[in-house]
Amino acid sequence: MSLIENLQWRYATKKMNGEKVSAEKLETILSAIQLSPSSFGFQPYTVLVIEDAATKEKLLAASYNQSQISDCSHLLVFASWITFDETQVETFIKEISAKRNLPLESLNDFKNYIIGSLSKLTEEQKALWAAKQTYIALGIALAAAAEVKVDSTPMEGFVPAQYDEILGLTDQNLHATLILPLGYRHEGDWLASLPKVRRAKELLFKHI
Amino acid sequence: MSLIENLQWRYATKKMNGEKVSAEKLETILSAIQLSPSSFGFQPYTVLVIEDAATKEKLLAASYNQSQISDCSHLLVFASWITFDETQVETFIKEISAKRNLPLESLNDFKNYIIGSLSKLTEEQKALWAAKQTYIALGIALAAAAEVKVDSTPMEGFVPAQYDEILGLTDQNLHATLILPLGYRHEGDWLASLPKVRRAKELLFKHI
Repeated sequence: MSLIENLQWRYATKKMNGEKVSAEKLETILSAIQLSPSSFGFQPYTVLVIEDAATKEKLLAASYNQSQISDCSHLLVFASWITFDETQVETFIKEISAKRNLPLESLNDFKNYIIGSLSKLTEEQKALWAAKQTYIALGIALAAAAEVKVDSTPMEGFVPAQYDEILGLTDQNLHATLILPLGYRHEGDWLASLPKVRRAKELLFKHI
Repeated sequence: MSLIENLQWRYATKKMNGEKVSAEKLETILSAIQLSPSSFGFQPYTVLVIEDAATKEKLLAASYNQSQISDCSHLLVFASWITFDETQVETFIKEISAKRNLPLESLNDFKNYIIGSLSKLTEEQKALWAAKQTYIALGIALAAAAEVKVDSTPMEGFVPAQYDEILGLTDQNLHATLILPLGYRHEGDWLASLPKVRRAKELLFKHI
């Protein structure tokens, strides 16, 4: 099936049936997240892959008791870096140097460009910039899930501060931005059979 | 090719060759954007599809003179809503009612839930929330482009205020958030042959 067909097949699943996603399909979805683009390729985030039932149960109350949190197979929590400085840029540049077999010095301009760009941001803007990158990864993740016919529910509807506390994210320089339960639609999910609603192309696009 | 293979094929193309993307392929990419998920399904953005050479030329200087802006076939400019209120929610609810053949009254709870959620946001937070949704659409758009073997370059590296002015976006309640040149890689693009650099899975994911 094409991406378009996969996007038509998927929907924000409201009720899952508890069935497990195979290790192989999960790996496909995680590989797609790993391949997601980000600004500079910096990937300023961590993705928590939560299968533990007790942890999911704790997160349920921090998610307005939406049943997908407990009935999913794996709960992906996208968590972006709260702050970062030259240290992370140095690490990133070293990875590029090693992977592409390029001398570190040849990457000095790129390194200084990134450091210069980031130094213009306030701490709040940095955190926001990092958070935005997780939205790209979420888009890629749900396209990957749909391709292997795994249902998913992209969600902003949870209490980030409570997630941060339950998962001990703040001490890891992380802040929860988005969640994506992965699993299989329950046959009783009311939303499954309803047609998708999208803004008409004449409104969504403007050709120049 | 699978999504994973497509993501491995794509890269942030630095130099394009000016070749035109066919109407059919462009339509596939726009359809994928139309199908992109967003919070509530609200799609608080417009995507400008710019083929006009004179407009692209004006935008070049507002894009740090990066050559993809002029050498691409079509330049997609993602522009999110600056503000919105109950009016847009009413329109959205009417669309759902029409598309799903549901009485308007049956959607009152959903409508009030959206209005309630949005009313908690400051004007700045609203704009930010809308902007984030365009990052999901960008992720989907570049996956769609890669599937039809169209190159693309996801870019935050432009001057949004200048884009807003050149394209007259502010008066349309829009603000440029992201751009995505679509086209074909130039054979001389230095980046094309270099291996992709991504954070190792052991660092990117945390299993619980």
